[in-house]
Amino acid sequence: MGFMTQNSEKNWTGEVADLLRVREGFVLSGVDPDSTPGYADDKDAAAQDLAAGAGDLDELQERLYAQSRSEVSDASVLLVLQAMDSAGKGGIIRHVVGSVDPQGVLLTAFKKPTAEELAHDFLWRIEKRVPQPGFIGVFDRSHYEDVLIGKVRALAAPEEIERRYGAINDFEKRLADGGTRIIKVMLHISYEEQGERLMERLDRPDKHWKYNPGDVDERARWPHYMDAYQTVFERTSTAHAPWFVVPANRKWYARLAVQHLLLGALRGIDPQWPVATFDIAAEKARLAAT
Amino acid sequence: MGFMTQNSEKNWTGEVADLLRVREGFVLSGVDPDSTPGYADDKDAAAQDLAAGAGDLDELQERLYAQSRSEVSDASVLLVLQAMDSAGKGGIIRHVVGSVDPQGVLLTAFKKPTAEELAHDFLWRIEKRVPQPGFIGVFDRSHYEDVLIGKVRALAAPEEIERRYGAINDFEKRLADGGTRIIKVMLHISYEEQGERLMERLDRPDKHWKYNPGDVDERARWPHYMDAYQTVFERTSTAHAPWFVVPANRKWYARLAVQHLLLGALRGIDPQWPVATFDIAAEKARLAAT
Repeated sequence: MGFMTQNSEKNWTGEVADLLRVREGFVLSGVDPDSTPGYADDKDAAAQDLAAGAGDLDELQERLYAQSRSEVSDASVLLVLQAMDSAGKGGIIRHVVGSVDPQGVLLTAFKKPTAEELAHDFLWRIEKRVPQPGFIGVFDRSHYEDVLIGKVRALAAPEEIERRYGAINDFEKRLADGGTRIIKVMLHISYEEQGERLMERLDRPDKHWKYNPGDVDERARWPHYMDAYQTVFERTSTAHAPWFVVPANRKWYARLAVQHLLLGALRGIDPQWPVATFDIAAEKARLAAT
Repeated sequence: MGFMTQNSEKNWTGEVADLLRVREGFVLSGVDPDSTPGYADDKDAAAQDLAAGAGDLDELQERLYAQSRSEVSDASVLLVLQAMDSAGKGGIIRHVVGSVDPQGVLLTAFKKPTAEELAHDFLWRIEKRVPQPGFIGVFDRSHYEDVLIGKVRALAAPEEIERRYGAINDFEKRLADGGTRIIKVMLHISYEEQGERLMERLDRPDKHWKYNPGDVDERARWPHYMDAYQTVFERTSTAHAPWFVVPANRKWYARLAVQHLLLGALRGIDPQWPVATFDIAAEKARLAAT
């Protein structure tokens, strides 16, 4: 499928999956949220590349779905999105995920757990929403909330938080073994950028509904969240389910980068149109006779 | 919101919701699947209008979602799609529903019922997928399968089929009373058009996966299905949940018409940005202090 990679890759100067991947020794505070790794700082070109990438994504997703109907493939994709408030998860879902045929997407926004969810293990509600073969699953927040806000606000005991890192790795390994390509993304904005974005929500009447006074309380815990993310990366960025930290002060870059990570996962699967399981000539004759 | 209606309505010569609505005395066989009621037969203009309509739909959907967060509105929309094979449900979902932010859409493709679903009343699985406030629910097939294929293939006794029409009307009335605007669409293609579309699936290797030998068996029952649809229209096209028969031999018309029906439902709700429930000035001061 080399022909499909040209349009959406020509302005990349490096492989985004390599540049953004969390590896041993990664330090979150060393990432510049204003940076655009692997891509020339060119917003106009990025808009064109995003549109071209949407076309590639569209065909790859349809192939993935078609392939799954043949029952010879269990492949699926799972995109996990985590971020501080206003970092742009919604924009990624709208502009990147939104370009894919909704028939092949399973989107879940995980909110504050219900009483029923809290009565179960933290992975219980997650398991119910993993993508089936042929689908691109998208988690808007995820089981990582249970080791992020869970840790920062001490919603669980330290030993329970500790247990969860291992449980997450086992869970994700099982998904990966079952054919799911897992891409975990943290959208990384700066503290200053968040301040400006929250202020914009207060300035614009059409954005008031997105604002919650609790957002400022969480903002006060910024350093604690950054520490919790650092630990998450150290404990759960694995070969089968790597983390990618995407600089997100520039929305156009974050969208392009996440689209690129999705494209990479799909190209890795390399889905093919399934071969007909029926006699084509015989079916044509049957149909022609109607 | 008059300003929002201009772009996507300038080529319409009539109100599509009036022209396509199933009323007393409606006869399915009197609808020409090649026709384009209310719209000049102009494919190029239609592509532009569809794009303009997508912009309108996008803003209306966001307002609907925002309004639901305020807890003063229970409004939602439910689009029910029914059709014979290859009539274009998938294209409607991809090109019309797909233009809406996925965060505000709840799409359900109802397949052959599972053993668990069959053990419950036919509306059991439907009830679980009705849209919550703020959402646009989309049913790809629906409870109407239970009075269409259910009747044609005698999957239930005649008196049970008979019971279902009333149960459906009661169910939909309850949804409508709860704030859901229901739009029921049958995409209407001709027998000849279906033959050509199925043959295309056999001709193209990238379409083989969409073909199923059972499609020709169902095609043989075409007149029975048309009769079953006629009865469905007579029994279940109500003031609170009307049916619209959309001529669908021309895909561009069907997509534009369904988009227009959705736009009409949303404009009927006329969703507004909710008023802030917090003290804006106080929050600005709190935020500025961080």
